[in-house]
Amino acid sequence: MIRVAINGYGNLGRGVERAIAKNEDMDLVVIFTRRDPATLTTAGAPVAHLDDMPNWADKVDVCLNCGGSATDLSAQTPAATAYFDVVDSFDTHARIPEHFAAVDAAAREAGHLAVISAGWDPGLFSMLRVLGEAVLPDGASTTFWGPGVSQGHSDALRRIDGVADAKQYTRPVPATVEAVKAGEPVELTARTMHTRDCYVVAEPGADRSRIEAEIKAMPHYFADYDTTVTFVSAEELASRHAGIPHGGQVIRRGETSDGVAATIGFDLALGSNPEFTGSVLVAVARAVVAMAGRGERGARTVFDLTLADLSARSAEDLRAHYL
Amino acid sequence: MIRVAINGYGNLGRGVERAIAKNEDMDLVVIFTRRDPATLTTAGAPVAHLDDMPNWADKVDVCLNCGGSATDLSAQTPAATAYFDVVDSFDTHARIPEHFAAVDAAAREAGHLAVISAGWDPGLFSMLRVLGEAVLPDGASTTFWGPGVSQGHSDALRRIDGVADAKQYTRPVPATVEAVKAGEPVELTARTMHTRDCYVVAEPGADRSRIEAEIKAMPHYFADYDTTVTFVSAEELASRHAGIPHGGQVIRRGETSDGVAATIGFDLALGSNPEFTGSVLVAVARAVVAMAGRGERGARTVFDLTLADLSARSAEDLRAHYL
Repeated sequence: MIRVAINGYGNLGRGVERAIAKNEDMDLVVIFTRRDPATLTTAGAPVAHLDDMPNWADKVDVCLNCGGSATDLSAQTPAATAYFDVVDSFDTHARIPEHFAAVDAAAREAGHLAVISAGWDPGLFSMLRVLGEAVLPDGASTTFWGPGVSQGHSDALRRIDGVADAKQYTRPVPATVEAVKAGEPVELTARTMHTRDCYVVAEPGADRSRIEAEIKAMPHYFADYDTTVTFVSAEELASRHAGIPHGGQVIRRGETSDGVAATIGFDLALGSNPEFTGSVLVAVARAVVAMAGRGERGARTVFDLTLADLSARSAEDLRAHYL
Repeated sequence: MIRVAINGYGNLGRGVERAIAKNEDMDLVVIFTRRDPATLTTAGAPVAHLDDMPNWADKVDVCLNCGGSATDLSAQTPAATAYFDVVDSFDTHARIPEHFAAVDAAAREAGHLAVISAGWDPGLFSMLRVLGEAVLPDGASTTFWGPGVSQGHSDALRRIDGVADAKQYTRPVPATVEAVKAGEPVELTARTMHTRDCYVVAEPGADRSRIEAEIKAMPHYFADYDTTVTFVSAEELASRHAGIPHGGQVIRRGETSDGVAATIGFDLALGSNPEFTGSVLVAVARAVVAMAGRGERGARTVFDLTLADLSARSAEDLRAHYL
């Protein structure tokens, strides 16, 4: 059994907890938190304070860091490599090289292995972008996101004066997706690729037309998109928009010879974004344990993993039944 | 530049030749044939007889074996490992363990590296089956093939008395694909999953109704499917069915927690099956050169490759721009 620790018990930490329950070779041995451990109700795993981490060094095979990229992971992941082999889901794309360098240095110093930026984007989508280009070098890759809930855009809505709560769905534009798959000429801009649907609970007495105008004019987040705003009650938001579904697709289209095209498509439809991200982290944790067992040290990404290491099955089994 | 040899100049060999032309880090240095080299017209590469292979041992980095699985590769791949690092597309699924063992022994003996069974199925589809199960262990994987030309079924048609020429298209049943993606209950049998469309050129005076009846009754190939037979002229077959398109999809659907589902889809739409298979072989050849350079010896499969090795880009470039 692989002994797993979860570091951080928010949406992603709970997603990892559920994913571990689906994997027979994984045992969740501890959940670390910076809150008072007594305040956490887990599905059964013991809870320890973050300060207690050193005492778990020889009781854990791999630690899954489940903090947020913006604030937590850039410190948490290097810190955790002092005690464990580690996986994180660092997803601030522009800062990945810097995070990689920091984690690599800390992990080498401590003699541990860390895979950063696992999940589905970055993660599985990144893997498919590299695979698509490797197989079809004369082509183009396009990524569409959704339909699904964007946490960042929902947060932006909630910061508007007069908004009590809100949820934003990103949706790919079907005609643009079809054109990309078919190799038809299509302009790829924010507006042609995605629409943004906002479900907003207004505070009592708030000016709804001012809120709607403010949303639609918000630079970067909404102004460049066809955005719809629907006002709903708090009850409706809670009952009809409770989940965190997401998904998307990576399309690689290229020519294998002049005038002969091929299209590679990879798509995800996820009932729960954090549970699926957690499921990827758990598979990557298995690979980390295998790689660390062979003496690998330092930082890695999903580009450095083999499917044999991600799988719970033996190489013989995979060759006989999965090739 | 990676110096590549092609061993066998049929449909797949020509597909590899075109794929190499699309890769800037690849140089096609020789094409081996068991025919008289003077009878081959290539796109420019020199041709050598198979018996001349030993003289190329230090002029080639990797050899792509492009013979057929049934007759050629089980001997060709172990033989070629005496001189080169090797890639093949061995696709007789039931005999893969046996082929792997033979290639592994020969390659270790000679101090070379070989990746067997590359292509798209076995190959990319195999990779997605393992990835899907690793990420969603509580689920099921389903593979659909087509729409595309099945070489084996086309050959079976041509063996029928009174058939001058023929081409068979395998098509997935759309309603079944949709049901699998949506997780709706659906019976998965030969008939519910695929249909078979046959375009047949009858010999002059042949009894077409007897041919049609014989096709539809052919066990394994057609009897278990909804099969249509369309008689066409030789000219129509040549003009409207000249290509070798193919494709298909792997769908993994599973639960990330009880009652919460996720679907992973991977689909290919290929203008030319041999050119795309060749494109995969070329990417795998790049990985073989990288792995052999690190001292790896023996046989491997696509489950043992990393995306970093398949890609022509540096690890730094991939982390900065593809994660």
